[in-house]
Amino acid sequence: MIQITDAHKISKVENGTLTSPKGFMSGGLHCGLRRAKKDYGLLMSVQPASVAAVYTQSHFQAPPLKVTQESIASCNKIQAIAVNSAIANACTGKEGLENAYKMRELIAERYELPADHVAVASTGVIGQQLEMDKIEYGSQNVQLSKENAHDFQQAILTTDTCEKSACYQIEIDGETVTVAGAAKGSGMIHPNMATMLGFITTDAAIGSTHLQTALSLSIEKTFNQITVDGETSTNDMVLTMANGTVENNPLSPEHPQWSAFQETLQLVCEDLAKKIAKDGEGATKLIEVNVTGAHTNEEARIVAKKVVGSSLVKTAVYGVDANWGRIVGAIGHSEAKVDAEHCKIYIESQLVFSDGTPSPFSEKQAEEDMSKETVTINIELQEGTGSGTAWGCDLTYDYVKINASYRT
Amino acid sequence: MIQITDAHKISKVENGTLTSPKGFMSGGLHCGLRRAKKDYGLLMSVQPASVAAVYTQSHFQAPPLKVTQESIASCNKIQAIAVNSAIANACTGKEGLENAYKMRELIAERYELPADHVAVASTGVIGQQLEMDKIEYGSQNVQLSKENAHDFQQAILTTDTCEKSACYQIEIDGETVTVAGAAKGSGMIHPNMATMLGFITTDAAIGSTHLQTALSLSIEKTFNQITVDGETSTNDMVLTMANGTVENNPLSPEHPQWSAFQETLQLVCEDLAKKIAKDGEGATKLIEVNVTGAHTNEEARIVAKKVVGSSLVKTAVYGVDANWGRIVGAIGHSEAKVDAEHCKIYIESQLVFSDGTPSPFSEKQAEEDMSKETVTINIELQEGTGSGTAWGCDLTYDYVKINASYRT
Repeated sequence: MIQITDAHKISKVENGTLTSPKGFMSGGLHCGLRRAKKDYGLLMSVQPASVAAVYTQSHFQAPPLKVTQESIASCNKIQAIAVNSAIANACTGKEGLENAYKMRELIAERYELPADHVAVASTGVIGQQLEMDKIEYGSQNVQLSKENAHDFQQAILTTDTCEKSACYQIEIDGETVTVAGAAKGSGMIHPNMATMLGFITTDAAIGSTHLQTALSLSIEKTFNQITVDGETSTNDMVLTMANGTVENNPLSPEHPQWSAFQETLQLVCEDLAKKIAKDGEGATKLIEVNVTGAHTNEEARIVAKKVVGSSLVKTAVYGVDANWGRIVGAIGHSEAKVDAEHCKIYIESQLVFSDGTPSPFSEKQAEEDMSKETVTINIELQEGTGSGTAWGCDLTYDYVKINASYRT
Repeated sequence: MIQITDAHKISKVENGTLTSPKGFMSGGLHCGLRRAKKDYGLLMSVQPASVAAVYTQSHFQAPPLKVTQESIASCNKIQAIAVNSAIANACTGKEGLENAYKMRELIAERYELPADHVAVASTGVIGQQLEMDKIEYGSQNVQLSKENAHDFQQAILTTDTCEKSACYQIEIDGETVTVAGAAKGSGMIHPNMATMLGFITTDAAIGSTHLQTALSLSIEKTFNQITVDGETSTNDMVLTMANGTVENNPLSPEHPQWSAFQETLQLVCEDLAKKIAKDGEGATKLIEVNVTGAHTNEEARIVAKKVVGSSLVKTAVYGVDANWGRIVGAIGHSEAKVDAEHCKIYIESQLVFSDGTPSPFSEKQAEEDMSKETVTINIELQEGTGSGTAWGCDLTYDYVKINASYRT
């Protein structure tokens, strides 16, 4: 959990979108890959933007990731991101790689950009080739708008049940800097759907290297701390563009407001990450696990993620069952150094386990706490000063249904 | 998979039990911890036996594990194992530890054994104290039998749907050596049930150190390669007793039949491990994943376990869905070094993925193969000569039901 300190005066922009930061436009349309929903989107900056990215750690990286990495490596600036949903262009061999290059080229040509200023991303079924006539139609017909980012934010979705966006602002050098993001999450109703895409825009002035530092730090505590079912897809990617339209002094770790900017970026990531977790397959609730008193922050994050990822904890939350034993089991099973005698477990603010034994608690209160939209589990390890949080969702009949029966 | 080589002439004893090896007796009865089913068991050797053990890697080890470790450390011999089901005596603090000592003492006194020749094990609900009057009743009234091991094999069960035992024989130095085992598995219908117990008996002559070597090697490829839901309990333990009633030359790595004995022990472990996986919560099928061509055997086992533990693979198997993309996802997500371009995936004998792209296959054949009691997935990594196998079960509605709703 990030504490929004008054010192930093970060404010949330309700209804903010990916194009709320200055100098960004976007568009989305139905190009024909999906039956009726929008399936092609384009995000554009008015000028080449600094860029930072993180990619899936899967050994099977899809062609669009390879092409995007090539673009970024070339000159560390990009100006446009083309995205399609429905087909992930993953496990598609040489033809898939050619198609990813072609998808990039189509936008570069239309907008007269260098090809290496264009990034591409795909999400959807794996093992199928992109239908390039449809990608071409999308590239030629997408219209860019400053005001409406919803077409883009919808076009990147697969089986997500809702658009996911976040927008925060902060004053830097007397100027208002906006950081916004949109994501698609872990809906895998269709066969082999690839999972997570995140796009972040900001009008701040910041070089690519420092942007990468700020992004990596943010990802570690946000996107990397969510789990729906422990799976990693071939296409996961978070791309950030900073176009410097706001003329602050370029941000770097030496800038007095560096940490404020980093926190703003992290808030955008956290907001999107929680929305992805909450919209996990079949999920009815968001689970937040806060760990304090670990030897290190990293160990705290490991424990938090182990608990939130435990199938037994997830089913217990679904069943509104204050089953502290499941939490003990998951903590005990984690790689972090933990002493059973020291650990305290709370469901919301109620102590349920302490000093190695269960602690008496009100079942009625626990039932109330576990019936909320967000179920909070707090764990004090009492070993040190490390803390961390992870988010996930409950495991429900619908998860099994969604993933067992898509062909029938 | 172990290949039973003709050279070793290992034979399976149908209907063999834990007391098939010479010099072992056992008993079991209803002492009152459970409503009606047997819940207290005793396994006894006619003489002090060499002993080897492995324990849960959970940070929360239950008191009976501590007491058993103390017994074994004392003189590396044990003669009796007392077990109760229904209450795991885990997360029970000092009182729990005293109760575990008392449970050991009761058997030591009745049979006039040194206390450190007795091991104890408990399985069941965690966070509850043992009801010692019932444990005392069990200790005083259990009757030992050479012929009937079923009472013991039943008394160690919790929500398992069936007894789990295995028995194999081999000739060593012209004598018939028998190795047998019984286990209880991953039934966690009740709150916080502790998971896995395994007991193995053999009449072979072998010192504790060498027995531990043989057991550790076997466990690595068998019990450690099964997963029901990725959870580890506070009470997991596998205990092996070798009483040397058969007068073979004591076994050691120098003995010409060392590897034959080790394989026999491993077969017993594998047999029990598969029975546990198959009887996983809500499971309808056993899944076997064989990996070949890894850089090392360890990497092969890592990949196999990752695939068999993937929630998406497990639900796909439940849904009889030849969803190679789930398998690709799990391989890609594993810690082993894998090149997507080299890997081949088979469902039973049908190639479904090769050279980084899907391979055309008969859906009808795949449906047949995936409707069997055991679904086999074969993966060739083509990187080296390492191989390994893992077993698991499908993820079903019943898993969610069992674990979400036990209180209601």
